[in-house]
Amino acid sequence: MNHSSNDPDSEPNEPLRYLSKDEAAALETELLSDYRFGQQQLIEIWGHACAVAIAKAFPLGTLAKKQPTVLVVCGPDQNGSVGLVCARHLRIFEYEPTIFYPKRSPQTLHQDFTVQCEKMDIPFLSYLPAEVQLINDAYNLVIDAILGPEADHTDVREPYSSILATLKQIKIPIVSVDVPSGWDADEPGTDGINPEVLISLTVPKRCAASFPGKHFLVGRFLPYDIQKKYELNLPEYPGTDCLIQL
Amino acid sequence: MNHSSNDPDSEPNEPLRYLSKDEAAALETELLSDYRFGQQQLIEIWGHACAVAIAKAFPLGTLAKKQPTVLVVCGPDQNGSVGLVCARHLRIFEYEPTIFYPKRSPQTLHQDFTVQCEKMDIPFLSYLPAEVQLINDAYNLVIDAILGPEADHTDVREPYSSILATLKQIKIPIVSVDVPSGWDADEPGTDGINPEVLISLTVPKRCAASFPGKHFLVGRFLPYDIQKKYELNLPEYPGTDCLIQL
Repeated sequence: MNHSSNDPDSEPNEPLRYLSKDEAAALETELLSDYRFGQQQLIEIWGHACAVAIAKAFPLGTLAKKQPTVLVVCGPDQNGSVGLVCARHLRIFEYEPTIFYPKRSPQTLHQDFTVQCEKMDIPFLSYLPAEVQLINDAYNLVIDAILGPEADHTDVREPYSSILATLKQIKIPIVSVDVPSGWDADEPGTDGINPEVLISLTVPKRCAASFPGKHFLVGRFLPYDIQKKYELNLPEYPGTDCLIQL
Repeated sequence: MNHSSNDPDSEPNEPLRYLSKDEAAALETELLSDYRFGQQQLIEIWGHACAVAIAKAFPLGTLAKKQPTVLVVCGPDQNGSVGLVCARHLRIFEYEPTIFYPKRSPQTLHQDFTVQCEKMDIPFLSYLPAEVQLINDAYNLVIDAILGPEADHTDVREPYSSILATLKQIKIPIVSVDVPSGWDADEPGTDGINPEVLISLTVPKRCAASFPGKHFLVGRFLPYDIQKKYELNLPEYPGTDCLIQL
């Protein structure tokens, strides 16, 4: 057997495909039902790799502030749990994450990820300062783990609409998980937040096709058959790395 | 905050502690109940990191045989599922794992990990060749993910007693996951299998204290409080690495 790391039969020069949100949702459903991956397992893989990507984009020694502070803003669903796992691994990597998680999921799965962070003594904010200067001064960067590709960008409700209004004004870098919150996953955002770094989970979505910042792909576990079915033409991850910069 | 990566209050020169099997079991119970880690989550973390350790100890370009074949022998419980996850990531890293999993667990958790391997087209052997030369010729190495620290080494039953008898005779390197199968977790084995590489999961057990081969520690997620409670004095993992060679 001699093949590229991702799809034995793909032509090496086929371009990477950016999936629509419907395709991305179908792929994830297939992973969970047919391939029997678990949500807990996938969220752990993604959250860990997000922390590695953040450490690569913003190494400890290069941060603007003396303390390696990071604000992780978590939404109510899966994207938020990826943020929680990411915060936990950032703590392990010696960053100082603070979590803002305004609406906690009632699901045990998400609650477990929350307890894991609490037990790591990661502080949780009870509200987000409305004064953006306070955020700029306190943190080196903000991780946007608020809304995923499934969110309806035309109908962002409170508290997330206010949070996004604040994040649009901050001066420190934003790292978005999977899809910048408030963007339609199917097209680049025009008046939403403006992340410096985007971390695509498993497959890049259409909105990332012309992303001007640093773009990482994480989630190196996708079975070859499903890569082929969706004609992903993923690039090769180097060595045993869990991420690739596109 | 300025502290070592593992325990802010430990003296840097305190020696690493090797836990008894009772301590290791208590620590794991605490992780699952108090810290609300999930078994699926931990098995994924461990299995992935085992594959990274194997790729580090036996890089693709250095294998004795033309094909990067690896035989992964999986036991009936958690250690076996770590082996399944390890095999899946080895496949992602372009090795060619083959799995021997003689007694499949009836638990959904373990079955899901099995299906994930089957769906990656990883072959499963229906029996282990009794002729050791066939194993020596077909594979570059054997991963022993058979028995964990909880197993009673004085009462290893079939099919595992025959498998261990075969593995004692093979000439290719063995990599053991957590505890070499057939050893007492509390003391070095004398007449068991003789692995070249040992991968300790989360904390090293007493049997590893004088292990003469390559010894990796994986499972970089342990909350600082629990590290302190068990006075582990873990060494610092470099950068964002998921493993450390002891």
